[in-house]
Order: sequence, then C-alpha cells, then structure tokens
Amino acid sequence: MNIPRNSMPRVVIIGGGFGGVSLAKQLSEQEVQVVLLDKHNYHTFQPLLYQVSTGGLEPDSIAYPIRKILKDYPNFFFRLAEVKKINIEAKQVSTNIGDLRYDHLVIATGSTTNFFGNKEMEQNSMQMKTIPQSLNLRSLILENFEEALLTDDLNERNALMNFVIVGAGPTGVELAGALAEIKKGILPKDYPDLDIRQMQINLVQGSDRVLPAMSEKASKKAEDYLEGLGVNVWKCLRVQNYDGKTAKTNTDVTFDTATLVWAAGVKGNTIKGIDAADVITRGNRIKVNRYNEVEGLENVYAIGDIACMQDDEYPNGHPMMAQPAIQQGRLLGKNLLRKIKGKEKKPFKYKNKGSMATIGRNKAVVDLERIKFQGVFAWFVWMFVHLFFLIGFRNRVVVFVNWVYNYIRFDREARLIIRPFKKKKSRVITTTQ
Amino acid sequence: MNIPRNSMPRVVIIGGGFGGVSLAKQLSEQEVQVVLLDKHNYHTFQPLLYQVSTGGLEPDSIAYPIRKILKDYPNFFFRLAEVKKINIEAKQVSTNIGDLRYDHLVIATGSTTNFFGNKEMEQNSMQMKTIPQSLNLRSLILENFEEALLTDDLNERNALMNFVIVGAGPTGVELAGALAEIKKGILPKDYPDLDIRQMQINLVQGSDRVLPAMSEKASKKAEDYLEGLGVNVWKCLRVQNYDGKTAKTNTDVTFDTATLVWAAGVKGNTIKGIDAADVITRGNRIKVNRYNEVEGLENVYAIGDIACMQDDEYPNGHPMMAQPAIQQGRLLGKNLLRKIKGKEKKPFKYKNKGSMATIGRNKAVVDLERIKFQGVFAWFVWMFVHLFFLIGFRNRVVVFVNWVYNYIRFDREARLIIRPFKKKKSRVITTTQ
Repeated sequence: MNIPRNSMPRVVIIGGGFGGVSLAKQLSEQEVQVVLLDKHNYHTFQPLLYQVSTGGLEPDSIAYPIRKILKDYPNFFFRLAEVKKINIEAKQVSTNIGDLRYDHLVIATGSTTNFFGNKEMEQNSMQMKTIPQSLNLRSLILENFEEALLTDDLNERNALMNFVIVGAGPTGVELAGALAEIKKGILPKDYPDLDIRQMQINLVQGSDRVLPAMSEKASKKAEDYLEGLGVNVWKCLRVQNYDGKTAKTNTDVTFDTATLVWAAGVKGNTIKGIDAADVITRGNRIKVNRYNEVEGLENVYAIGDIACMQDDEYPNGHPMMAQPAIQQGRLLGKNLLRKIKGKEKKPFKYKNKGSMATIGRNKAVVDLERIKFQGVFAWFVWMFVHLFFLIGFRNRVVVFVNWVYNYIRFDREARLIIRPFKKKKSRVITTTQ
Repeated sequence: MNIPRNSMPRVVIIGGGFGGVSLAKQLSEQEVQVVLLDKHNYHTFQPLLYQVSTGGLEPDSIAYPIRKILKDYPNFFFRLAEVKKINIEAKQVSTNIGDLRYDHLVIATGSTTNFFGNKEMEQNSMQMKTIPQSLNLRSLILENFEEALLTDDLNERNALMNFVIVGAGPTGVELAGALAEIKKGILPKDYPDLDIRQMQINLVQGSDRVLPAMSEKASKKAEDYLEGLGVNVWKCLRVQNYDGKTAKTNTDVTFDTATLVWAAGVKGNTIKGIDAADVITRGNRIKVNRYNEVEGLENVYAIGDIACMQDDEYPNGHPMMAQPAIQQGRLLGKNLLRKIKGKEKKPFKYKNKGSMATIGRNKAVVDLERIKFQGVFAWFVWMFVHLFFLIGFRNRVVVFVNWVYNYIRFDREARLIIRPFKKKKSRVITTTQ
C-alpha cells in the first residue's frame, strides 16, 4: 500500500466504527501517522439501523464519509480495504489492496451477528448490523406484503405477514416497536386489499425479560408498551432452528414465517493471525488488559466490541455498545501518545452513561446512573441523545426533519424497494381475472 | 392476478412514471377501476438522478412510493410486476405475477438508454435512467478515486480519474457540471494524497452545440459555464466504441477512461405483443394519434416517452421529457372518461412550458416561451421549479435542506459506497511500505 513513510510512528487502526473513529480523532493532531482501514468508506451510526429497515430514515443520513470526519487532520490516511491477516512477527497487515507495516496496531473490528454455529439459521435469517443488511430487510418486508397480495393460499399469506424477531435487546425491541407502528399507521392505507390485522409481530427472548441489560422497571415497562402495540412477546423461549419456512423452538411452539430477524447475539469479529486460543475469550473477543493492550503481543491493542477487558465490575467485559468503544478509543489515543513520549499510561475505567431504548411513538425507557424513567419524556431524551451523537450537521437536520414528519403524519416515506432482496419467481396462476 | 372484477371498466396502466401517475390520478376518483403495474414500488423523479450519482441527494428523497401517491383513491390497485407480453386479442397482459384482463390498456413504459445496437458499449458504459443505475455510478466514481490512490501506474491512475460523458443534453450537461463541482470542492479535501488536477471531465457531443434542444443562447452560455468549470467540451465528435478501457471516436481522438457515462440517446421501452413494425416508429416509439390511441388497435393507448405523436409542429413526436408525459396522461384520463360516458374526446395539444438545465452552483440556463435567461436567477428558478414538481412534502424539505447545506458548505455528504459496483480485485503489490 503506497503510504509514505516518515519519521513519525505509524498507528494502523482496523475499523472505522465508534472506537476506531474516536481513536483516530484523538491521535490525528499529534506527531503520529494514522492509517485507518475499513471495508466501507463510511462510518455507520448503528443504533439507528432499525429505522432504515423500517423505512423511517434514509440510509445516507445515518452514514458519514470517514474521509470527511478526518479531512482536516494532517498525517491521516484512510484506505478502503479488507484486512485478510495480521502478521505479528513482521508487524504487518495483509489486505486485499496490499500489505502495510505498522508500529502500533489497533484492532477495532467490532462484532458480527452470532448464530452460535447454526449454518441453516444463518443462511435463512435476516441480520441488521450493516447498512446493506438493513436495506435488504427493508426490501424484504415490503416485498412480503406485495407477495401477500398475490396469493390465495392462506398459510402462505400468513407466513408472509408473520415477522419473528429473535432477541429482545435494544435492537429487537426497537425493531418490533417500529414494525408495530407501520402495521398501525401505514400498511392499512398502502394495502387496503389486505387484511393487515393478520400481520403478526413476534418478539422472542430466551431469558425471562425483555431488555435484560436494563433495569427491571425498564424491562417491565418496555414489555407493557410492546404488548400495548400488539407485539407478541415470548419470554423464556429459544429459537433453535429456521429453515426459511418454520422456526422451531426449545418448546412445542413453532412459527411459520417468511421473515426471521436474528438479533439474539453478537460475537467479536476476529482476524486471522490474532485468533490464537490464548488471546480469544468468550464471545470471540480479544482479551485485553486495562490499557487495551492484547496481552503477550507488543504494540497490539484492541478496543470496542472486539475487546474484552475483564474487571471486578465487568467480569465478562464491557457491554458491546457504542459508549465503551468511544471511551476506550479516546483513552487509548491518550495512552499511545503518553507511551511514545515515555510518560506513564492510565488504566481504563468505564463510565456507564446509562442505556435507553424506544418502543414507538412517545414511548421509551431510559436508565441513567441515578434515575430511571419511562414514557414521553424518556422518548424525547432518546431522540435528542441520538441526534446529538449522530455525526454531521446535515445528517442531524435530515434525521430531525424525518422524525418531525413521521411524528406529525404517522408516516414513513422511505418504503422503497430499491434493490429487491428476493429473487423474483414467476407465479403459476391459472385463472385470469 | 387476484384483482376483484366489478361492473366498472378496468383501465390497466403499465408504468408508474410521470405519464402513468398523472393518468392514474386523473382517473382515480371516477367510475373506473385502475390497475397500475410497475417493476418498482416507487415513482422516480428522473430529472434529479444526476444528483444521486454525484452524492448531492439521497436516492430516497427523489423517489416516492406509488401506493402512497394514490392511497386515498378507491378503485385503485397497484401491483409490483414486470410485464412480459401483451395479448391484444385476448385483451390480456401477461406478467411475472400472472395474467390480467383489461378493458382499456395504457402503455406508459417510458424509455431506456439507446446504445444503437452496440453491445460492447452497452456492457461497459454506465447509465443513469433508474435509481439503482445512478447508485452504481455513485459507487463507481468513488471507487475509482479509492483505486487511484493505490496504483503507481500513471496511465492507470489517469484512466481512473478520467470521466467521459457522452451526450450533452440536460443529463450530460448537469452531470458534467456536478462532477466539476466535486472536483473543485470535495476531492482535494477527501484525497489530499492525490493530485486532483489530473482529473478530467470530458463531455462529448455529436452535434455542433451542447443542449441542442434549447436556444442558441442557452447552448452558448452553458458551454461557457462548463468551460469555466474546467469541463472539456467536445463538439461534433461521436464516441463509436468503448471496451471498458478506451473510448474510440469517429476521429483520431480517443479517451483512456475507466468511466464512460452514456447519455447520448434514449429509445422507447416497447413490450412484446405491441412491437409490430406497423405501430413502431423511429426511436422505437409507438405511433399514436392525437388522442394517444395506438392506431389499428382497439382501446390501447400509449403516453409519454414511449408514445410518438406526430404533428406539424413536432414531426418526430414530442420531446421525451416529463412535461409531454404529464400532459398526455391528464388528457387521456379525461378522454377515457368522455369515451366511457359517450362524450366527444379532445385532441392533444402540447403546451411547451420551456426547458432548463443547471451547470453547477449559481449557474443555469432557462428557455421559456417568451423569455430566455441565464445565470444566478435562472439557477434559482431551476431549483424552485424542481422542488415544486418533486412529489411529497417530506421529499421537498429534505432536498431543500440538502441544497442549502451543499450551497453553504460546498459539500455533498452522500459520498458513500453502500453497494460497491466493481468487483474487488486483489492487487499484486510487491513492496510493503
């Protein structure tokens, strides 16, 4: 890769998510050369992907060009590349566009959906970790209704209008809430010739409450909201397989569905060369110490979802969310500069800023350190926090316009099938009407 | 196709472009059943596609769900379908989702890019008639610059940064202007390690002036604007072949380019069953009389780009643009109702509302019937006319926000490679830097 070498130490960051971008920003006005590698040329604001899937927001307004985030910084290089392998001994990264030497390597590759080894489930389920995946889900939801219009087979129609979301973390809960709003506000108008009451939204959770990482009160209230919106909440139920037609569970319950969204787990997105058993811990994450250093490796760090930093408070590592990634990225930036200057580095301490989830219009649950609240105010807090953390002034304005419009008009206009997801099949129809 | 039959006559419209939608609106509060078929579930505002290709607008804000346009009308049915064939004798349309009988059939299938039979050119050129095509072009432009960064081969780098636009109608001129703005305002910041001055924008026109359908003054001024922006304007030059690497012309001039956009012609998008030589005229369009009736066929009509209505003023048919389509759709709606009620139908008379094109910031040319003007005021007129004709309040606000943002910040944020267009190839790079 033709990046000029100079006297400054080179920090190679793999991944332009919350962690990688925070770190790059922290480093980029300093005496280090920063090379950021990502397979996309944009940073994705993942917490709003479910709104892309449900036509509430354009994909372009929750993405932001990585080059633009860091355009004003000297010594910063971005390369659109897929990393294939890390060679620790040669201090070298191999990618689809060539090799690159590093002085310091930061792995910020995030996480991918975890199907726990079930290939059949993986092949047939929808995921919602990237923008293309979310757009595929958007297309599929709309294609299902178009197809439901065409069939006279009641079972087929029901399956097309049956949505199963596995996993009631924030992603699953927010998606279920958004689908319920579409069912109420949009589908009856768009499909007057379909009986939309037949549409089912099933949210399936393995444990005994939704939003298990939040407070009991938030879980209880979220469940009330979901049921009020007509979502079927299934607790203590685990989906064990899905062949594209029927989802089987650990009980007698089965779901005949054309759409299963898997939001029941993520795992670290490891890279070849750094996947030896001694550095990988549960959830496929890379074990790091309090300085985000990968133990046993020199000048190799991991931050964000991929990093598992265990301490007394978080014996299984920090939650795989934006905040730990951002905080680790910032601290690692400072620590790298301290290290280069021969100063003493500081250990990471996660400051839990709380968590929140929205369940449709006027409804959200917010857990802060000192206070937990739910309802309309929580919903406004949810919106403004998300607008605040979104990158880019234009993105904020466009998202705000969309939200105001959706709020006033009960509408979501991005219900467009721009790239169809299903292969079109010719229907054999005997009667001409 | 399971659409209920009732006592009302059924009008089947093929195509949800400007013509089809205008007609459907005209008919939908009347005593007729309207079935609109389209292979997309949205209407595309084609005049702004070039802004999607150049990252100025999100695709979602120039598209609008067809179901939504007509949701308040009873007796209206939309089906997402690809029409395969028309059977005139059986009064039946065959589609990928089944067959459908019609009482009145309106062909509003618009136009596709015309490569005049050159398959090699077709395979290697980019088009800009649909949203997916425009997004492909957006991805390709950005991928080219990412790739230009990687190569040490000067010829390859120049080809990646050389853009050839064939055809200097409004599409070609507006695309060239937008690319020139990107070259000036965005690329030097995004790619500080590339010499963006090497980027070439070539606009190639077969006739002796750009915008040949507009006034001489507009052509002259547009050419001045383009040259002021650094676009190479080639007149009286015809690209005759492009193998994906080199574009050959009718002279010694050749272009080594990785991107050739073909905007040099469109042709009617005909359907099997209605493509007999006696109804098809030049440009692959369907010959119609002054009532948009396909001559010799009963209750079959064609409107918009696909229809060729010849009269003294327009011996080759009306221009293939939005306005004739909208006007024909409206009149045909009225005439169909007149016909059903046994009243006398009225002949079509095209009211030319003028034409316009923009060539980057603060620059446009406008030809109205009585007055022709160019410059800043023309540019404002261009913007407000486009905002006015765009469908949907939310779309207008979002487009307006984007334009204000782009204007103030000299920026286009939708420079995202969401679906890569090129297959990623591994580069063989011998040196590690």
